[in-house]
Amino acid sequence: MISPKLVKPRILSGFMELAPCKQIIFNKMIDIITKTYENACFVPLDTPILELSEILLAKSGGEIDKEVYHFNKGDNDLCMRYDLTVPLARHVAMNSEAISFPFKRYQIGKAYRGERPQKGRFREFVQCDGDIVGLEDLPLTADAECIYIISKIFKNLNLDVLIHISNRNLLFGYCEDLNIKDTKSVLTILDKINKIGKDNAKNELLKLNLSETNCEKLLYIISLNGNFQDTIDKLTPLSQNQTYILGLNQIKELYRYIKAYEINEEQYCLDLSIIRGQDYYTGTVFETFMKSHPEFGSICGGGRYDNLAGYFTEKKMPGVGLSIGLTRLFDLLDKNNLLPPIAPTNTKLQIIPLGDYIEECLSLQSFFSQKLNCEVNYENRSFKSKMKEAGKKQIPYILIVGENEHNSKKYTLKNMITGEQNSLTKEDCLIQIKNNL
Amino acid sequence: MISPKLVKPRILSGFMELAPCKQIIFNKMIDIITKTYENACFVPLDTPILELSEILLAKSGGEIDKEVYHFNKGDNDLCMRYDLTVPLARHVAMNSEAISFPFKRYQIGKAYRGERPQKGRFREFVQCDGDIVGLEDLPLTADAECIYIISKIFKNLNLDVLIHISNRNLLFGYCEDLNIKDTKSVLTILDKINKIGKDNAKNELLKLNLSETNCEKLLYIISLNGNFQDTIDKLTPLSQNQTYILGLNQIKELYRYIKAYEINEEQYCLDLSIIRGQDYYTGTVFETFMKSHPEFGSICGGGRYDNLAGYFTEKKMPGVGLSIGLTRLFDLLDKNNLLPPIAPTNTKLQIIPLGDYIEECLSLQSFFSQKLNCEVNYENRSFKSKMKEAGKKQIPYILIVGENEHNSKKYTLKNMITGEQNSLTKEDCLIQIKNNL
Repeated sequence: MISPKLVKPRILSGFMELAPCKQIIFNKMIDIITKTYENACFVPLDTPILELSEILLAKSGGEIDKEVYHFNKGDNDLCMRYDLTVPLARHVAMNSEAISFPFKRYQIGKAYRGERPQKGRFREFVQCDGDIVGLEDLPLTADAECIYIISKIFKNLNLDVLIHISNRNLLFGYCEDLNIKDTKSVLTILDKINKIGKDNAKNELLKLNLSETNCEKLLYIISLNGNFQDTIDKLTPLSQNQTYILGLNQIKELYRYIKAYEINEEQYCLDLSIIRGQDYYTGTVFETFMKSHPEFGSICGGGRYDNLAGYFTEKKMPGVGLSIGLTRLFDLLDKNNLLPPIAPTNTKLQIIPLGDYIEECLSLQSFFSQKLNCEVNYENRSFKSKMKEAGKKQIPYILIVGENEHNSKKYTLKNMITGEQNSLTKEDCLIQIKNNL
Repeated sequence: MISPKLVKPRILSGFMELAPCKQIIFNKMIDIITKTYENACFVPLDTPILELSEILLAKSGGEIDKEVYHFNKGDNDLCMRYDLTVPLARHVAMNSEAISFPFKRYQIGKAYRGERPQKGRFREFVQCDGDIVGLEDLPLTADAECIYIISKIFKNLNLDVLIHISNRNLLFGYCEDLNIKDTKSVLTILDKINKIGKDNAKNELLKLNLSETNCEKLLYIISLNGNFQDTIDKLTPLSQNQTYILGLNQIKELYRYIKAYEINEEQYCLDLSIIRGQDYYTGTVFETFMKSHPEFGSICGGGRYDNLAGYFTEKKMPGVGLSIGLTRLFDLLDKNNLLPPIAPTNTKLQIIPLGDYIEECLSLQSFFSQKLNCEVNYENRSFKSKMKEAGKKQIPYILIVGENEHNSKKYTLKNMITGEQNSLTKEDCLIQIKNNL
């Protein structure tokens, strides 16, 4: 029973707070993603979580989306960032003189959306974004590099994924060729075909006054999906529209670069159903799915945009980027027992005093900690319960310091996995542990 | 000129946004602090930045400090966290059944205070906290471990510091002995003696109706400061008050443990002027100063508290912790040219095509990136300007891929530091780079 004076400890719904044994795994995943970005020479950026509403809502002309955490403080009208893209746009516009382009930056940080929490949706979530921003122009090698990085991130995370790639110019041009006026509405319908099904999509297209033939043509083209060469061969005869040809040539060029990067052919495909809702994508688009769990939906998406910072500067800054929603991905992996097999502890050695040898133990901690993660168990509890606890925590080595050990300076080292126990000098303990870890 | 349609890109005052070359150093410092905590087997915790006001303001009975970012969203009354201690208290109270105590956790994260920005003060700042929380009791070895960790963190950061240590029971007991009723007000005055000077402090004490003798006694005891043994010898005859003796015995015991940890004697001292304002400290207290720049003030403080989570649970949870305000420290180091000498780039190798060899370059990136951070410079710029840019970025190695290189598969590797240039196979390039980094 909690006394009425006490505040009941709890967190807000839609916010993830992990137990440390899980946080270790989450942090390890962040570490792997960070190292992969740095391996491709992306530089880190950390923008504030709070910005002026005028900045973060520039896109919507200042209109406040209900989802955004928004408030006033003093004279300032503030928002918590809801993605990492608008802050990037603001940063490059603000610092365009100092930045050397192409600017390859990664940012791993929290973003906020106060939407009604649903299964698998979070109000506070960690985004792991990488973008390559050019000044005036940016070659298609940048698009290939993003896809290369996706393939490496998931390989390093030990998750088997398939990257579905398309180019929006193909559908833009194809719609133009079919004399479709309202391309945006058509793409919105086609984008949700996996959710609503082919028949419903067709009905919605017919409602837009598309002819039966055009509907069938659209449903056919977005069904094209497979390895690049075969799919390119199927796409080639479909249209001579200029935008279409541009898209096809971009896909062909991209394919050359992806092959040069030696990405495993099993890891990517050309898939015309990949559209991505956001208006700002203008060329390459991609979504990433887990092969064993396509029902998770896309776990990493992105694409090419022609003008990142148009709300903040007249300089033209084309870019291409990828984004991983790590909080959602972690939650899905956790619930499906798919988390990478990382030990739930960073501790390599625990030193346990048997009797009044605490100072000797601290001195041993000082010695061992030069080379490995170690601690002294200085709790006022029984030796037996300490050993049990260490086993539960999966600590690999225990060092026991009792009277014999104190006198002989040979310490009892227990391997908690094999159960093996040896009497060794501290130097020999270190050698044995280092050899086995 | 910015067109009137554009939003001027800017950030809020009091918020730090570093250029990536500086962010690399900031992140490296976080990395060093993280590894030091993990080396002592602290586990990571990441609490939400947003919590219910009822939770974060439990201490103040829900009264909103002007500094706190506070707002409503839907039915929720929310705050952005202003420290990492209250969220820790909430976490341990909420999860006390699952946690094995002592709970040693570190948390490196942002906190928010919307105070009027002053020189060196930030509204968004990164705190690097480590705490050891016990259930019912916690031995003094934990206090020693915190001091050990401080000494290691700053050693690993290559900053020469002096840790000033005291124990609040000494002054509590001494005031009791002098029959002082309003100990809290007295300690508040003594705490700011370095700011206001000895004479002003004395005047303020006299205003509290302290006798001239008592004022002098207090000013004498808080002037005691030096190595532990000498200072303990000076403190021993001053009082027989029980609380005072308790404090003195705790200091003696702590000293034994610090010596056992083999912390360099030059790194710490006993300093009775260390009080720390916060009410909740009950025993050991400490502040850390840079030896070369004491005017920076304390860059890491902390201490022992008897009851961490009293607002959330009836379980008694004593703890001891340390806290580094990294944003402020980084800013001070930066402004005084004291940042650790870390390269402003993570890039080890940049591959530059000379002519139409982009695919060969991407393939080489794929090869080298297995072992080191590398990138292809695929910009549409002249070779000369690319070389100049690489020099400016302090990239240590450049690989040139032109017609000769393409034909012979021997690539021109240039060491940008020595200027040395060799024609080597990709395998030999890798060996040479790895040997020299």
